[in-house]
Amino acid sequence: MTRNQLIQLINTKKSFLSVGLDADIDKIPQHLKNSEDPVFEFNKAIIDSTIDYAVAFKLNLAFYESIGHEGWLSFEKTIEYLKKRGNIFTIADAKRSDIGNTATHYAKAFFENLGFDAVTVNPFMGYDAVVPFLKYKDKFTIILALTSNAGSSDFQMQYCGNKYLYEEVIVKSAKWASPDQIMYVIGATKADVLKNARELVPDNFFLVPGVGAQGGDLQSVCKHGMNDQCGLLINSSRSIIFSSQDRDFAEKAGESAFEIQKQMEIILNS
Amino acid sequence: MTRNQLIQLINTKKSFLSVGLDADIDKIPQHLKNSEDPVFEFNKAIIDSTIDYAVAFKLNLAFYESIGHEGWLSFEKTIEYLKKRGNIFTIADAKRSDIGNTATHYAKAFFENLGFDAVTVNPFMGYDAVVPFLKYKDKFTIILALTSNAGSSDFQMQYCGNKYLYEEVIVKSAKWASPDQIMYVIGATKADVLKNARELVPDNFFLVPGVGAQGGDLQSVCKHGMNDQCGLLINSSRSIIFSSQDRDFAEKAGESAFEIQKQMEIILNS
Repeated sequence: MTRNQLIQLINTKKSFLSVGLDADIDKIPQHLKNSEDPVFEFNKAIIDSTIDYAVAFKLNLAFYESIGHEGWLSFEKTIEYLKKRGNIFTIADAKRSDIGNTATHYAKAFFENLGFDAVTVNPFMGYDAVVPFLKYKDKFTIILALTSNAGSSDFQMQYCGNKYLYEEVIVKSAKWASPDQIMYVIGATKADVLKNARELVPDNFFLVPGVGAQGGDLQSVCKHGMNDQCGLLINSSRSIIFSSQDRDFAEKAGESAFEIQKQMEIILNS
Repeated sequence: MTRNQLIQLINTKKSFLSVGLDADIDKIPQHLKNSEDPVFEFNKAIIDSTIDYAVAFKLNLAFYESIGHEGWLSFEKTIEYLKKRGNIFTIADAKRSDIGNTATHYAKAFFENLGFDAVTVNPFMGYDAVVPFLKYKDKFTIILALTSNAGSSDFQMQYCGNKYLYEEVIVKSAKWASPDQIMYVIGATKADVLKNARELVPDNFFLVPGVGAQGGDLQSVCKHGMNDQCGLLINSSRSIIFSSQDRDFAEKAGESAFEIQKQMEIILNS
């Protein structure tokens, strides 16, 4: 999916919601646990109940890897199902970082083999850890800039020369490819820095985690982070997918996603 | 395996070699490709032929993930085989980075489910991306400090305040746990900075990639990076495991590993 197609999808659905399929096996409703592939069954139900209100789904690899090769199988089945549903932006939240030769394998895995639209990448190792992903011109590389956790102050918010490290990451990497290929992760718990990041790169999309369970505020994020083509994907994971841990989990997840979409529609129309 | 046990193993084997099982499916000898699990067959043969000369094996996840859930199965079988062989230090070269809740899943996957002795971790997200790994007191967290690729100059070698970012990573993270739990990745292509890193943390082990295929020089690395308990694990991947791509691949890999071990024995005895 290209940037223009994503913008079109946002305008059609009146939503810039990304649903995070953090399918923590310990939190999946009990009644699914006897099925052949509980994680996939869970994801499939969540996708079906929330897809009308979302423009993207984000799969964090940790939750799949932690259950081994069976987890990878659930992961593969989930992205296949998303592609079958179609017209949705898919993000592999892998936060990978490795050098050229190895990063090439990661890029191939997520973009070619699995067919994701986007992968999250950790920039700490520099240009040659990112460029193998940028070789896929019709895909998005989502670079971690300022994350939503407390530890982001350890290095990302360190002052490097005349700017913060996260600013250095944005300014430097923005030269590596156009906004058609690069997005940035900017944590919603720090809405004031969204304004700053938006000034540095007016056109790039930001993937914003931390709205909901992590306490970020939608209004504030939009006020500071939006551009005239929206420019935001707001991700919610736990606060949507674990709205209920009972038999009504999918229905309740749908309701939570709808609640957010309604707020987003108001913001987009304003 | 504890730090003392690792030091003992180095003294017994007269080696501080880590063999990198970067089992690139495209480079595996042709005659193995018809077997049921070519990657595992390759790894098994390499392990058997090199284990007498090595103290550690490092598995880079990218090469397994790039072939999907079947790759994960090969990965799982390889670590099982290494544990069966026993008395060897095992490293999951994952370079993972994620926040608390999610990092906990990665730590569980590599330390508990798979039973690795060590995992490589990217420090960009700060303390709470690393601490879930440090909760495993009898395991090693190997933190990326200065990597061996050209792109390490983009951020790791940026001057932050009164020191380079890689120095800031070392100084700050060294307070999070003792040298019994933390190692650092320091690239061998920059032997002069090894000396500097060694001064910052006299007791921590360094995992040094980039000797061999990437051009680092063993003598120079040892001169600047060793401490009085060795303090080094030198990793070679391609220059050992792809010594031959023919039917004699395992034999040739064993010879390559033996060549390095002989040099290491001289250095350890000097």
